[in-house]
Amino acid sequence: MNVQLRLKRRPTGRVSADDFDRVEAPRGGAGAGEVLVRVLYLSIDPTNRVWMADVPQYMPPVGIGDVMRGAGLGEVVESNVPGFSAGDLVFGLVGWQQFAVMKPGGPFPLTKVPRNTSLPPHTFLGVCGPSGVTAYYGMLDICKPQAGETAVVTGAAGSVGSIAGQLAKFQGARAVGIAGGPEKCRVLVEEFGYDAAVDYKAQDWRQQLKAAVPKGVDVLFENVGGPIMHAVFGRMNVGGRIALCGLINAYNGEGTTQGDFGALLGRRLHVHGFNIIDYEKRWAAATADLVRWVLEGKLRRRDTIVEGLERAPDALNMLFDGANVGKLVVRVAENA
Amino acid sequence: MNVQLRLKRRPTGRVSADDFDRVEAPRGGAGAGEVLVRVLYLSIDPTNRVWMADVPQYMPPVGIGDVMRGAGLGEVVESNVPGFSAGDLVFGLVGWQQFAVMKPGGPFPLTKVPRNTSLPPHTFLGVCGPSGVTAYYGMLDICKPQAGETAVVTGAAGSVGSIAGQLAKFQGARAVGIAGGPEKCRVLVEEFGYDAAVDYKAQDWRQQLKAAVPKGVDVLFENVGGPIMHAVFGRMNVGGRIALCGLINAYNGEGTTQGDFGALLGRRLHVHGFNIIDYEKRWAAATADLVRWVLEGKLRRRDTIVEGLERAPDALNMLFDGANVGKLVVRVAENA
Repeated sequence: MNVQLRLKRRPTGRVSADDFDRVEAPRGGAGAGEVLVRVLYLSIDPTNRVWMADVPQYMPPVGIGDVMRGAGLGEVVESNVPGFSAGDLVFGLVGWQQFAVMKPGGPFPLTKVPRNTSLPPHTFLGVCGPSGVTAYYGMLDICKPQAGETAVVTGAAGSVGSIAGQLAKFQGARAVGIAGGPEKCRVLVEEFGYDAAVDYKAQDWRQQLKAAVPKGVDVLFENVGGPIMHAVFGRMNVGGRIALCGLINAYNGEGTTQGDFGALLGRRLHVHGFNIIDYEKRWAAATADLVRWVLEGKLRRRDTIVEGLERAPDALNMLFDGANVGKLVVRVAENA
Repeated sequence: MNVQLRLKRRPTGRVSADDFDRVEAPRGGAGAGEVLVRVLYLSIDPTNRVWMADVPQYMPPVGIGDVMRGAGLGEVVESNVPGFSAGDLVFGLVGWQQFAVMKPGGPFPLTKVPRNTSLPPHTFLGVCGPSGVTAYYGMLDICKPQAGETAVVTGAAGSVGSIAGQLAKFQGARAVGIAGGPEKCRVLVEEFGYDAAVDYKAQDWRQQLKAAVPKGVDVLFENVGGPIMHAVFGRMNVGGRIALCGLINAYNGEGTTQGDFGALLGRRLHVHGFNIIDYEKRWAAATADLVRWVLEGKLRRRDTIVEGLERAPDALNMLFDGANVGKLVVRVAENA
């Protein structure tokens, strides 16, 4: 059998287990042009929350009654698609379920993941997967920090932010991370090598920010939006670059997606909204670099593994509560 | 004597003649490293209104009691600066006065303007001056419309917008202009060659916009901000480019400078706030093209001349009332 979490209703605010139906469905098999995948890990990402909502977005919202959409890592069980064989490790939109019947193509297409590294497979959802690739193109392709410049990363302790700051450092920039709470701020500096950290939950966070960027901000890797983004805009230097990666402050329906175009104009800022689905042809190149840097010990990572498909909704809330550091995954297959 | 308009107090909403002191001051002369300029024309621009306000902006606000800052065209009377001679026609921040003692350098620096064309001098404030250069770099350098794409221009009947649409057409794009009132919309299509015009004062302006961009919007040249910008964002194609040139809806203190970063993210838009002060080294190249196109009859222009320095505040209000088409200048010298 195949256990699935199907979207029962659109959540309001935080998600709840009651927003999903747990269904035991037949496992199915790979038809013509299809692959049957056993799901090993789910990637838990802010975009999961967006996909549940009936708002304008880059893919259609998940339909009521449909298996919840989610990226993940799996193992091919049966394949009727050239290039995929039983036993292959694959990344793709497997969904919140134990087994997925998948076709190639589409956004986040089915992609083979190497087995021949010493890295645990779930790193291909994190530092060596979509999170790392997002940090890679957002920072290196869009922000392009130069030696001596200052790069600010919001959501800096998250799966993308924790990598983005390290990549800014690789370019010789000063990296400043914004995250919630003293423990995360400690991790930013001590583990991920940020030059300074700003605790947005502290009363004096605006002063912390001011002190952390004495030469202003040249580059902003934005994951959050709202008042934090606004405060950084107020310290951007003329001609600064902003990679707009996420607006998690608004995904639960409470914060705002609005931002100050007056600052964009007055400081002549460049903002690029981006999504790695537009970089698909360049994923492999980024992944090769990321794997090498991790194996060399140059790139640090942290992963949080939540056990069991049924805990995927709880895991998603952890992102919004800021309860995790680094990549958050759900282990679906017990022996993965 | 030198008649000057000095800023008496910061205007609230529309400007009033009472916000300025009319002062008769000694004419002065060119000291060491200075040029004395007789002002011929003032360029009336939305930025004048911003400069009056004590808000964050790209130059310091005009001080209370100071001569109002403004770009203009003048004739050199005396020069102690190499490269400038009596009789030269010059562009620069002459201010709202009859005579200006100026130093070279700074933003909008003193620049010689050719006398050897058949164009009236005030065109070097409009189509062949900062307005044209703004349209040139905003459209050709930032928006880069391609053949077959759709380019939308807001404030399309203004000094910059009326040129920007024509430049989009030069590139083979479909040009759609947004302006206020049926007469302006007629001028956009019949004089400036826009493919379609949207009257934002009409009740059905959203439907007009939808009908005007059947293939969505690839490029937006934004002069206005607020609900009009928001509506265009809702029709942008993935990867669209936005040259953020102005937010005139907010300059009188009533509209908003906020905009939807959710659209920037979901549609992966690129927004570049810009200002021609950053293109100073490339002004001459743009001006050469613009002059040639005007002389060839390829680039159409309209100018509105308001007579008399004292009417500069009224002229500025015309911009906010949408009372003019094309470039608005004030003639300061009677025999200019």
